[in-house]
Amino acid sequence: MTSIFNHRTIRKFKNQPIDADSLQKILEAAVRASNTGNMQLYSIIVTRDTNLKTQLCEKAHFNQNLVKQADTLLTFCVDISRFKQWCSLRNTKAGFDNFLSFYTASIDACIAAQNACIVAEDLGLGICYLGTANYTLEAHIELLKLPQGVFPVTAVAIGHPDDQPPLTDRLPLEAVIHYETYKPYSDSDIENLYSEKESLSFHKQLIEQNQTENLAQIFTQKRYTEANNKVFSQKMIEYLQKQGFMNNN
Amino acid sequence: MTSIFNHRTIRKFKNQPIDADSLQKILEAAVRASNTGNMQLYSIIVTRDTNLKTQLCEKAHFNQNLVKQADTLLTFCVDISRFKQWCSLRNTKAGFDNFLSFYTASIDACIAAQNACIVAEDLGLGICYLGTANYTLEAHIELLKLPQGVFPVTAVAIGHPDDQPPLTDRLPLEAVIHYETYKPYSDSDIENLYSEKESLSFHKQLIEQNQTENLAQIFTQKRYTEANNKVFSQKMIEYLQKQGFMNNN
Repeated sequence: MTSIFNHRTIRKFKNQPIDADSLQKILEAAVRASNTGNMQLYSIIVTRDTNLKTQLCEKAHFNQNLVKQADTLLTFCVDISRFKQWCSLRNTKAGFDNFLSFYTASIDACIAAQNACIVAEDLGLGICYLGTANYTLEAHIELLKLPQGVFPVTAVAIGHPDDQPPLTDRLPLEAVIHYETYKPYSDSDIENLYSEKESLSFHKQLIEQNQTENLAQIFTQKRYTEANNKVFSQKMIEYLQKQGFMNNN
Repeated sequence: MTSIFNHRTIRKFKNQPIDADSLQKILEAAVRASNTGNMQLYSIIVTRDTNLKTQLCEKAHFNQNLVKQADTLLTFCVDISRFKQWCSLRNTKAGFDNFLSFYTASIDACIAAQNACIVAEDLGLGICYLGTANYTLEAHIELLKLPQGVFPVTAVAIGHPDDQPPLTDRLPLEAVIHYETYKPYSDSDIENLYSEKESLSFHKQLIEQNQTENLAQIFTQKRYTEANNKVFSQKMIEYLQKQGFMNNN
């Protein structure tokens, strides 16, 4: 439980391999997670080769240095391909090439990923989730050789931490928790719930560096712009079709 | 770490409330999870009212008795509504009403959910993930009063366990792990990887009860049929539009 409350995203890793027992335990933890119907419609790709990590770093993860620095990169994928093959050997058809099946298998892949992360942290390792997995589908498919029916959901870099960042801030718990039903926020609720975050000196520095008026503008105008979100949304739907997950009719 | 390897899905709960400290710890664990850009684009709805749990059980969770029996139901939702409101108070627009933002926030919601589950199990409680959250969107939106910009991802029933089921089987680790890149399976790989699962007496009984030839047919012809998957895929896309997540152009 301790590692959950001490979680830090690690972005600097030592040049030190993860021992085989630890890696085995991390992977075993992943598959113990709950999953839809116990069909295990996911695959986990374990990349440790330096050359391949470098290519993934450059082409699939926006050149984030930590990707080649970390000993191991785990890419969690939806996988209906293996299950389909089993079904065809068993005289039946897996009708899973649709959006619902993709989405429920994505949930399973994420829950498995978090189990892996918690055990890695329990073992003294550091982790970093890579949201870039959703942006660079073509590079993922090419470099990891993902066939039809396989789709990257999220990636995690794991290694021995070479950094001790402070605990990241969070909104107060009451900002995200609703009792019984969803309770709309008044404007003054929002002011109160975001005030601590906005007052952090770390965020004030960011505002200066980014030359914006406030923190909300950094998120919306610098980091996660509407234009980019739309481009990547279209790309994602295009690749859902290409990988065979949009046969909904 | 122990609770990860001892995880069982609990489907029978005692009539005994979760104490306030434990619930607090479970919720605090959820928000410690990694999330995209630390924007926390999710909300967690904590339902404990007997009447509301009964309605959710009947209308939103296919009458699975455990939903009203469990002390607490957590519904993890994507939530861009709160963030949008903050942005509009800060003279900027959150361009998050698109599929990519929905999907990345879904990942965040799942990772938060798994943190909550692990801490619940560490505290001696039992959990059950409810995939039904993806099937009954209308009932979720109505009963939990979800506004535009909020969408249910997954739900978890939590309570004091009144059952000690055995550990669930999993495919051998090598079935889901690929080293360096995705390795295609030969038909004999598939035969080997699924043979243990197929030989379990529990599954042989299921085949008899379902009057199918084999286990694969139970999954594809009885439990997760193509026809149902397609209907629910269309419904999900329809509700993504209704809740304001498909403005991709």
